[in-house]
Amino acid sequence: MPKSQKKAIVLLSGGLDSTTTLAIAKSEGHSIFALTFDYGQRHEFEIKAARKIAAQQGVVRHVVAKIDLREFGGSALTSEIEVPKNRNIDKMSHEIPVTYVPARNTIFLSFALAWAEVEDANDIFIGVNALDFSGYPDCRPEYIEAYQRMADLATKAGVEGRQRITIHTPLIVLSKAQIIKKGLELGVDYSFTSTCYQPSPSGEACGRCDACQLRLRGFSENNFTDPIRYITEL
Amino acid sequence: MPKSQKKAIVLLSGGLDSTTTLAIAKSEGHSIFALTFDYGQRHEFEIKAARKIAAQQGVVRHVVAKIDLREFGGSALTSEIEVPKNRNIDKMSHEIPVTYVPARNTIFLSFALAWAEVEDANDIFIGVNALDFSGYPDCRPEYIEAYQRMADLATKAGVEGRQRITIHTPLIVLSKAQIIKKGLELGVDYSFTSTCYQPSPSGEACGRCDACQLRLRGFSENNFTDPIRYITEL
Repeated sequence: MPKSQKKAIVLLSGGLDSTTTLAIAKSEGHSIFALTFDYGQRHEFEIKAARKIAAQQGVVRHVVAKIDLREFGGSALTSEIEVPKNRNIDKMSHEIPVTYVPARNTIFLSFALAWAEVEDANDIFIGVNALDFSGYPDCRPEYIEAYQRMADLATKAGVEGRQRITIHTPLIVLSKAQIIKKGLELGVDYSFTSTCYQPSPSGEACGRCDACQLRLRGFSENNFTDPIRYITEL
Repeated sequence: MPKSQKKAIVLLSGGLDSTTTLAIAKSEGHSIFALTFDYGQRHEFEIKAARKIAAQQGVVRHVVAKIDLREFGGSALTSEIEVPKNRNIDKMSHEIPVTYVPARNTIFLSFALAWAEVEDANDIFIGVNALDFSGYPDCRPEYIEAYQRMADLATKAGVEGRQRITIHTPLIVLSKAQIIKKGLELGVDYSFTSTCYQPSPSGEACGRCDACQLRLRGFSENNFTDPIRYITEL
């Protein structure tokens, strides 16, 4: 039961982590304003997934903000760099993956901050995770702390001494298995979530990129069958 | 004469301040990558001005990034709130103007950071000014310092210990008259620059909004005639 109806902006990619984050924000009594970015990524399937999840979770409003990061070039998720497959996911945690998108979370959080200020929401939720992808600079706790300090100074609330806008990262130190466990406890239907870096045109996951491997292991460790479809029988 | 050709990302609105900032970055020997936002503002004239200025200044590349802040609502520059006219510009410095756009500079700097990372540029220039509009939270030196600390942690360079991306604010403590003086010394042609919050459809400035009043006084204090056109004879 919601304790109150505090507004929260939730960054929703349509993936497993952000969907779990949305469910956590909701379970804490927030009314949800979901924010998804259409940033020229190759997998538009994610945006469709985000729309289904937002509808299913009964969000107050879902904005899909179109921004074109392709103009700047430089990432596997927005241009034609090859997505690595069948890598050993236990050995990749200290390098920056080629799938890194420059300043992505900084841009996403900045839009969330703008929306929070307009809606008079005091809370922003983002599903960053420092364990699985510690190679991403903008998934680390020290980055989030620095963003919070900047946000405190960037906004009207900061100047006027009102309650600040707090950035919540409920998944930041959880393993993929712990995230899935939490989501299953909250009744998340993972069949809509999209994780794969390079799904087929009809939305089937590849099963071999880093993201797919981490996801599959997370479900396996929960003794739960991943409900999404994969290209090949795994 | 440029000392070298270091790359710099310059935020270029097409206004007087950002145009002067671009000229300063160029005079310091940078090759210029100019970044303008088409964010659903009412005065599209500014974007045309930015294109003219970028061409005139011989930038390496000019990106006009389209982002739609109107989806979030909430500001005089993006929605239908009345722009104040004929206010006493000496008495407005400690309130947040209705023309404040939530998190605007945070969003703009975040795109600049992404582009800097892709281009391997170590410098970002932004023409914020703390004196004329101290009411804007995201024009204050303490905000810029916090943004810099966040940016140091957000980027690959920060993680890998390479040279950081530095945010430069050459106008931050200058008066409008000092900014214009600097620009005139650098040969800036201010006839293309757009400042007015509510210009006519053909691009004539109103002469009465806060921005016009500050601009006109800045030129007057330099004993220089503002070369742009105003709606009424002033």
